[in-house]
Amino acid sequence: MSRDEKKVKPPDACELTPITSVANAEVKLLRSLHQRKYRRKTGWFLAEGMRICIEALQLGYAPIRIVYAAGREAEPGLSTLIAACQKSGGRVLPVTEHLLTRISRKDNAQMVIGAFVQKWTKIDEINACLSSAGCWIALDRVRDPGNLGTILRTADAAAAAGVILIDDCTDPYSVEAVRASMGSVFNVCLAQATAAEFSNFCQIWQGSVIGTALPASIDYRQADWSGPLILLMGNEQAGLSEEMMGLCTQLVRLPMKGRSDSLNLAVATGICLYEMLKV
Amino acid sequence: MSRDEKKVKPPDACELTPITSVANAEVKLLRSLHQRKYRRKTGWFLAEGMRICIEALQLGYAPIRIVYAAGREAEPGLSTLIAACQKSGGRVLPVTEHLLTRISRKDNAQMVIGAFVQKWTKIDEINACLSSAGCWIALDRVRDPGNLGTILRTADAAAAAGVILIDDCTDPYSVEAVRASMGSVFNVCLAQATAAEFSNFCQIWQGSVIGTALPASIDYRQADWSGPLILLMGNEQAGLSEEMMGLCTQLVRLPMKGRSDSLNLAVATGICLYEMLKV
Repeated sequence: MSRDEKKVKPPDACELTPITSVANAEVKLLRSLHQRKYRRKTGWFLAEGMRICIEALQLGYAPIRIVYAAGREAEPGLSTLIAACQKSGGRVLPVTEHLLTRISRKDNAQMVIGAFVQKWTKIDEINACLSSAGCWIALDRVRDPGNLGTILRTADAAAAAGVILIDDCTDPYSVEAVRASMGSVFNVCLAQATAAEFSNFCQIWQGSVIGTALPASIDYRQADWSGPLILLMGNEQAGLSEEMMGLCTQLVRLPMKGRSDSLNLAVATGICLYEMLKV
Repeated sequence: MSRDEKKVKPPDACELTPITSVANAEVKLLRSLHQRKYRRKTGWFLAEGMRICIEALQLGYAPIRIVYAAGREAEPGLSTLIAACQKSGGRVLPVTEHLLTRISRKDNAQMVIGAFVQKWTKIDEINACLSSAGCWIALDRVRDPGNLGTILRTADAAAAAGVILIDDCTDPYSVEAVRASMGSVFNVCLAQATAAEFSNFCQIWQGSVIGTALPASIDYRQADWSGPLILLMGNEQAGLSEEMMGLCTQLVRLPMKGRSDSLNLAVATGICLYEMLKV
């Protein structure tokens, strides 16, 4: 084989030397994606596990990095991911199992971790959905990444179009939120808005805006859940702000039959979304 | 004042010297309650926060230990807790704020942490509820403490009688589960059973047993949710075992309109419980 022939042949992943050091620049970059600061800077995020990375690919997200346990290159799903990553100009990184644990920062790490580019929908693009009978979920200052990820998972199951994150919310692209979403982060649109932007948007939104609130006088089972609608849910501790309540066309409450005066945010969102599915 | 007079006077909490060392035997005992082994050994568990400890007291749980930031003795809720703890023979432990963080193992620890005695309902005592129109939730090998705590919170809100934990479940008295329950762990009965015990119990249970399963042919909205009933939910990864499905009088499914083929366990349980509330 001449040198030229060798030059044009793309390197097979299996020819790559496994990375063993946590000080490797690529490993450091991927580990930095546990911090919001670096997710913002790069516009990237991590998703763990073969199933979720393959689903991402099917939904049009080619991985910008694929990290995997060296020696597993031949596994069917992994070879597909490696090919897609290389085709789109990403980098393929075989590593030791120890390094996978260091990158995922949990025990029993998945054998494959992908880095992907975040996708954000602009608030004015949501207008394109005005004619749809569907549903957007708007979350006012949601704080818990597990709650947000679980809401993305439920939004996906209930065929909601997407989630609007109002003001200072936890990051849907954090490792914890992505884990809790079980891959739904790739299948649900995400938008960000300040309270003022969301308020402006509500002025032109022609569907209903249903908010849940303790002082609400309508039982959620009596509300009109026909779309298009925005389901507006408040912060875990404080609920909806007065300003947000003012934007609602209907305020509903869920019955509380015991001592607790509220439900977990993801549970309350799920109950409302499945109520909407009945219409 | 004679020595004898001094002897009979119970010590005021404010006279106690604050504990400063993590090596203190009481502090070590409380910190050990983060481990299931020591919760089993002692039969105790930790609950954090003034509101939850006060609610526990109102529900008949006197704290066996009260740990608090030294100097706060005079706060109304805390003085009530201190009095109740001393009255029932428990110990009152003022500590430094640093030690509170060490005991709770999280930043921004609550100013009050209580240790309480676990309460377990025997499976054959559940029979006493046979005539009730209420609901028990049975969880088959639930693994995630956050899910279990959230289910306790929803069970409380939906006025379910209690939760039966089948086979190897996560501990409802773990710090994580108690936190997620937001105090509902004190207001919901807890029972444990092996799969065989639960199977035997189902033979004499005269209500329905509704299980959620992917292959189920009945939409959950078409099921008969009238009580008494047991809502039987499966493990996060594997769902209900064949054996458990065999115990169900109705198997239901929740609609999945997107790519995800399942919901978070706590969300699915919440949707079912609120469907039951409609009957």
